[in-house]
Order: sequence, then structure tokens, then C-alpha cells
Amino acid sequence: MFTLPQKDFSAPTTCLGPTCLQDLGSSHGDDLEGECSRKLDQKLPELPGVGDSAMLSPNTSYLSSRGRMIKWFWDSAEEGYRTYHMDEYDENKNPSGIINLGVSENKLCFDLLSWRLSQSDMQRVEPSLLQYADWRGHLFLREEVAKFLSFYCKSPAPLRPENVVVLNGGASLFSALATVLCEAGEAFLIPTPYYGAITQHVCLYGNVRLACVYLDSEVTGLDTRPFQLTVEKLEMALREAHSEGVKVKGLILINPQNPLGDIYSPEELQEYLVFAKRVWAAWGSNVGLVQVFLLSSPHCGGEAGIWCFFLQDFGMSGLRFGTLYTENQDVATAVASLCRYHGLSGLVQYQMAQLLRDRDWINQVYLPENHARLKAAHTYVSEELRALGIPFLSRGAGFFIWVDLRKYLPKGTFEEEMLLWRRFLDNKVLLSFGKAFECKEPGWFRFVFSDQAHRLCLGMQRVRQVLAGKSQVAEDPPSSQSQEPSDQRR
Amino acid sequence: MFTLPQKDFSAPTTCLGPTCLQDLGSSHGDDLEGECSRKLDQKLPELPGVGDSAMLSPNTSYLSSRGRMIKWFWDSAEEGYRTYHMDEYDENKNPSGIINLGVSENKLCFDLLSWRLSQSDMQRVEPSLLQYADWRGHLFLREEVAKFLSFYCKSPAPLRPENVVVLNGGASLFSALATVLCEAGEAFLIPTPYYGAITQHVCLYGNVRLACVYLDSEVTGLDTRPFQLTVEKLEMALREAHSEGVKVKGLILINPQNPLGDIYSPEELQEYLVFAKRVWAAWGSNVGLVQVFLLSSPHCGGEAGIWCFFLQDFGMSGLRFGTLYTENQDVATAVASLCRYHGLSGLVQYQMAQLLRDRDWINQVYLPENHARLKAAHTYVSEELRALGIPFLSRGAGFFIWVDLRKYLPKGTFEEEMLLWRRFLDNKVLLSFGKAFECKEPGWFRFVFSDQAHRLCLGMQRVRQVLAGKSQVAEDPPSSQSQEPSDQRR
Repeated sequence: MFTLPQKDFSAPTTCLGPTCLQDLGSSHGDDLEGECSRKLDQKLPELPGVGDSAMLSPNTSYLSSRGRMIKWFWDSAEEGYRTYHMDEYDENKNPSGIINLGVSENKLCFDLLSWRLSQSDMQRVEPSLLQYADWRGHLFLREEVAKFLSFYCKSPAPLRPENVVVLNGGASLFSALATVLCEAGEAFLIPTPYYGAITQHVCLYGNVRLACVYLDSEVTGLDTRPFQLTVEKLEMALREAHSEGVKVKGLILINPQNPLGDIYSPEELQEYLVFAKRVWAAWGSNVGLVQVFLLSSPHCGGEAGIWCFFLQDFGMSGLRFGTLYTENQDVATAVASLCRYHGLSGLVQYQMAQLLRDRDWINQVYLPENHARLKAAHTYVSEELRALGIPFLSRGAGFFIWVDLRKYLPKGTFEEEMLLWRRFLDNKVLLSFGKAFECKEPGWFRFVFSDQAHRLCLGMQRVRQVLAGKSQVAEDPPSSQSQEPSDQRR
Repeated sequence: MFTLPQKDFSAPTTCLGPTCLQDLGSSHGDDLEGECSRKLDQKLPELPGVGDSAMLSPNTSYLSSRGRMIKWFWDSAEEGYRTYHMDEYDENKNPSGIINLGVSENKLCFDLLSWRLSQSDMQRVEPSLLQYADWRGHLFLREEVAKFLSFYCKSPAPLRPENVVVLNGGASLFSALATVLCEAGEAFLIPTPYYGAITQHVCLYGNVRLACVYLDSEVTGLDTRPFQLTVEKLEMALREAHSEGVKVKGLILINPQNPLGDIYSPEELQEYLVFAKRVWAAWGSNVGLVQVFLLSSPHCGGEAGIWCFFLQDFGMSGLRFGTLYTENQDVATAVASLCRYHGLSGLVQYQMAQLLRDRDWINQVYLPENHARLKAAHTYVSEELRALGIPFLSRGAGFFIWVDLRKYLPKGTFEEEMLLWRRFLDNKVLLSFGKAFECKEPGWFRFVFSDQAHRLCLGMQRVRQVLAGKSQVAEDPPSSQSQEPSDQRR
């Protein structure tokens, strides 16, 4: 292993803990990129320098050191995604193809969304939408976002359009926030397991790290449930970061928690907020807490500093829409200044505004139908798992289940986790393994259940086949190839 | 003036020359942001540190040093834009409002574009467009882009979709390219006057500078026309950069030249290419020449390294579309990896593909009509200028005219240029002054003529009024306020 000649590009992840090698990116989707690709198909970078001569193409002298790093994130995941993409399941054209339960997209309501987006009120094309506009987003859209959030988040007072900034997705929002809040090399605290792509989002442009607060599934002492975040753990991780000379600028909380499928209670959020205020106020800063909410979160009202909303669970990742809400005008303005690189088409802004303002359709059609379909899918997968005697966590938030397959790993290693993941993929079902979420315990997998029944059914059938025949993964003859999957797969 | 406590954020522009203070950004449009806002309305940053205590809001301790810089770019231009935005001309609602001849947008064909984008073939909303997709862009779009460029650029061999990367506009493309090609603090050569917003685009995320090749209007010796770029001038600027310890990684050429309204000849491009190859091959790099073409450029075939195409002259800046074409797969991949932050909605990608593949409409309706309207507008403004005895450059490329108003500046200073620009604005017509393009000669202004006849007519009438009454700008009593327009205007 060698270290890239890095002039100004630090490690892409804090790795304050020993096993922080993660999240190698992909060309395909925020989530896939971070979580279900063949992450370990390439030699992973070592820290604090990043890079292995084997994984760099020989002809990259025209890229800067950070350019090579950025390219490496693509290459390594591209390698992994290729298997899936070359053999994608299609009911008619490729029924033996790979079923994708790895990408956290809600695919259950495309019929409803397609119908709504095809209505005549969506088709307005007027000059103002084709011209340069306010980089924060058109005012008509920011007004709708503010109203929408006020209503669905039960805000005590109406939220204000001037606190809204609209961007082309959550990835962009992380990138912009990391850049304007942190210096290069500084970090955010984040509890693990977490949505792995965030590592790239704060790092690729911003060169910001994540300082992991490692949680585990054990329920002892003050921990009343698995992977419970406590202020004590936050403080410990913060101390550790400090001891390693890393300056931590804030705490990132994702709600609902991905991959845990849980939400923080108002009481918990209050505790974390008190912690954040205490820590960062002492540093002369009143940021400190970046809360990220998906739209379904019931707890996004409150006094936290920065809220970010994505559209993942509106079932339209491909529409590219995300929004920042903050009463901190300096942060809003700085992010807005970067929005010239994260702008949405005026036509899409118009469609989003039309969608958000159609409360009748949202309340009477979309939300109930989406809820019913999600519930049915969740019930199906949960019952399948119960029938298999497999423990799992799922408190009903998000559209994924965090599944405990530790009993299928006799030695309890990440190598076994990877092997099991590969068994699934070889049996044509793509899942996400825990390592990609920086989970400290090998053997956890995320199952995304927000897919059509026939695909879900087939996917679970393939999962069952693997688990039935492969309860002794580690007893298979290990080869150097299977330890180095990239060689095997190329 | 003081220097921001900058840990890792270098000066936002090279400023290898003494007067490189420019391009202060805006919330409104690539072009407006760089070129027609009240750039000097705020104290400008000094180099190599950037920042003046007066221009930083007191409450920015939660922003990083680069965050403050990024915010500053917004604030300073926001200040300038406000005047225009608060008093925008509207034929019916605000006929005494400001006419905008400052933003280089083509507003002549919104009727055609609106019609085309409203047709039923544009309204497809299918699941694949609502899901995560290849960050390079959907294949169907990249195929159409390759075909479109092959055809309209008369490429000797068909261009290939795998060399195409699609992004949400030209600003993003500059940001991504600068980041993957350069280390922080490195630079690109660029001839002046140039489209000023590029300064921000390479700097805000990438912390890359511009090393200016200062051209002037004098025609002597080898210069056969004003603002002529020669290899000798490129070499001189490169030497100067080296002598100041700045590493230059490539040359940016914009074609058609903005604000000059000219295009480089094939012979010239060949000379610059030879220069670039000689310089950067010696450094073990085969990049070196970043050519930026608007779609109307007839010269984008060739062997240069990286081509970028925007949609400005398709008259749809608000659609947010730009594309990279390069045969250098490493560069394409690295840029694609950053495209997770520059993604377009699947719906817009579909519409763009539909538009690009409709050759009948483009060839028989859009291009001829657009050409005729541009020509009429150009003829009108040129004749107005000739009648006023005002020299100008305009070789028929782009939709702007580079106007020589030096005779209206008795002392020939940038202060007078700013005063004249303000006279125009006070008389309700917004133009762009030469300083914003880093022009070394005070007194040049860019007139954008691609607007409806009645607005153009009114705008030129207001210009005439100012010039008729204000040939002695510098004789007006200067006040400290008028020297500090930000104070005056706030």
C-alpha cells in the first residue's frame, strides 16, 4: 500500500475508529453508491493517506491528487455495481436477473406519481422558468416548501420561505453544508450505523470527515434498546476525536435513522440538542446540530439549527430535490451561494411546487396509498423473517429493515459478512451489508422492502435459499480469490 | 483591510496581475452574477488573503473561513442585484423599471421553446426517470448529445456517448473540472476579457485560481485585431505565473468569446493547442487545454482535450443543462463521480433528449428563426451605436456586443467606468462593465442584444439619454459616497 501524493486532500473519512473503511461510491444513486455495491471488491484505502497503487489506473497523471481520489470512489463502486447492472431483474426480459433489495428507494408508488406528474397542471413552460433564477430556488417553490413543512411537521409557527434553500438532492446539501461549516480536515460526529454515502458527500468537495459514534446492539445498563445513542457515547466519541487532533464542528442526525428504521423521540432529540449547544456554544459557535429529516419524520419541528429534507420517501430520488431549512441566515446564504452548482431546472421547480400544494391528492391519495403499500410490504418481509427465525429491528420508520444475520457467521467476522453478501448476490438478490453503514458488529444487513410484491417475493425466496443452504458460510473453503473479491469478479 | 483567518482557503482569484478584483457573484444567474451586478458596491477583497472586516457580517462564527468567503460572494453581488430585482421592467406592471441588457441570456425564442417543450412527447413520466440513475446522465440522453454534437459540430467521426457527461449547467462543469484537474491553489490560464463568473466557479469549491492573459484593444505589430490572443502572450502570462510560484494546469478558451462576441479561427485554435501540448506534455500531463464551446460554435471538432458545452444560446439557462465531452476517460470518470452533486432530474433529461433528437424542428424552425431574430436585434443595436458614433466589436458570434465607451471617461479610470455604469442604472438600463470581465482598459461595456424589440428599443433609448447628457462623467462632483457605491445604495 502506498500513499497518494496528497497536497491538500486528507483522508476521505475520519476513521477515528479502527475500521472506518467504507462507502466507496458508485455511479448509481445516492444509496446504492454507499451501501449495496461491492465495496470490498477493491483494495480499500488506508489512512491517513488514501490509495493503493493497484486501484489507480496507470494513466491518471492529469488528475490532481483529489481528482484521483474522486475518481477512485467511482471506480471502486462502479466495479461493484456492474454485476447488478449487467444482470438487472426484469419480469419479462430477465426473470432470472438480480432483484435489488439494496437501494433505499421507494418504488411502490410510481403509478401514482407518474399519474400526478402527467396532469395538465404540471406542463407549464413559461419564460421565467427558462431563465436564470434565484439560486435559492424560485420564490413560488420556497413558499410551497415552507407551507408544506409547516403543515406536515406541525410547526408551532409558520415556517418562512426566506429560510428555505432548494437544491438538487440530499447529496448536494451535505456537500454544501460541510463546505461552509467546516474547514478542510474538520469533522462531524455521526452515530453508526449510518447511511454510508454521507462519507463521500462531506468529503469529495469539502474534504470534511466523519467522526463515528459507534453503537452496538447489546442492551445493557442505560441502553434500553439496540444501537441506542446516548449523550455519554457522544461525549466519548468527541473526546476521542479531540485526542486525535480532529476538530469536530457538529453532529449529524438522520431521522428516520437509516439503516435502523427507527426515529429519535422528541426527548432524545432534546438531549442531543442540549449536548450540541453545550459543546459548540463553548467554542463560540451556535451551529453544532445538523438534523436531517426525511419528509415522513414527525419530529422535525423544534429549535435545532439546521434541518435538511430530502425526497427519498416521496418515491422520487430521480427527480433530484432536497431542501435546507434554517433560521441561521448566514448558513442559508452561504449554502445558497453554492447553489449555483446545485441548481434545479425551473420546470422541475414548478412541478415540485404543484405537487406540494396539492394537499388533497397528497392527503387523500398518495399518503394513504403509500402507507398501505409500505405496510403490506413491511408485513410480508417481517413475517418471512420471523418464519426463518431471524431477528431484526424495524420500528416502522423508513422503508428498510435492519436484519441480524449474525448467527450465519460462525466466526463473526466482516470477511464472513462479505462472503454471505456475495452468496446473496450470486443467488441474484442484492442487499446491503452492515460494514457499508460502518456498523461495528459483523452480520447485519439492510433489507429494503419498498418494492413491488412480485419482486419482493422473489427476492425473499432467494434470501431463504441462501440461508437454508448456507448456514455455514465460513466452512466453505476460503481461497485467496474469495478473500479478494475484486480479482474474482473482474 | 484585513485578511480572513484562512486555514485552507486561498485567494479566490489568482490575481497575477494587479487589478484582478472581480466577479463578485450573485444569487441570480451565471451571467448576471459575474458581470452586471454592482460589483464594486462592496469593498473588494485584497489578495492573497481575502476579506474586509466591513463586509463580513458580525455573526458568522459558525461558518468556516471558506464558508465566509462563499457567503461573501453572494452578499456582495446580492447587494448589486437588488437594485435591478426590486425594479425589474415589465411592459404592463412596471414600464419605468430597469431594462436588463446585462445578463447574457437569449430571450428571443421563449415562444418557440415553450411551444416545443409543451408538446405531448415531452410529458413522459416513467419509473426509470424517477429513480436513481447513472450519474453521468441517462444513456438515452448521452446518446442524443453525442449524435447532436457529431452532427452540428461536423465531427469527422461520430462522437461517442461514453465520452459524454451531463451536468446541471456550465457553472457545475467548471467547478468539477477545476477540482479534479487542479490541486487547491493551482491555476488555469485564461485570456481577458473573459466571462467573469468563471472566477467563482473554479474557486468556490475547488479553490483554483485564474491566471489572466491580459489582452488590449490596440492593433500593432503582430496583433491584427483588438484583444487578439497570441502564443507569445500566453507564454508571457505563464512565465509570470511561474515567477509568482503559481502552478498553471491548463488553458481555458471560451468560444464564442464572451464578451468579445468573436470566435477563434481553426488556425488559432491549432496554435493554442500546440502551445498547450508543448507546455503541459513537458509536465507529464496531457490535459492542458479546456475548450468551452457554446452550441453555436462551428469549431468544436478537433483534437483538443476537453470540450464543454452549455445551453446558454439555446435560450434556456433556467433549464440547467451542460455537458462535458472528453476522450480522456479518467477526466470523464472523475467528473462523473462529482456529478452526484450536479445531477439533473430524470424528467429534464428526457425532455432534453427529445429536444435534441428533433432535428426537423431545430433545423427548420428553431435555428432559422433564432438566427433571424438575433440578426435583427444585432442590426438594430449596431446601427444605434453607429449613429451615436460609438465604436464596438462584434463579429457575429454570441448575443452581445463589446462596446467601447472610453471616450466618455476623460481620465480613463475604472472609477469613471463605474460611475458611467451607475448612470446607466440610474437611468434604468442595466449593462455589464469591462472590469467585471477583467478587461485591462477602463471604458468597455457589454451590451446583450438578445431581447425583445420593445425592451431593446427602450434600453437603447435610455443608453442614448445617458450618453447624450453625460459625456463628462468625471466632471460630476465626486463624493466619497459615489466612490463607495455600496453605502450609497444600501
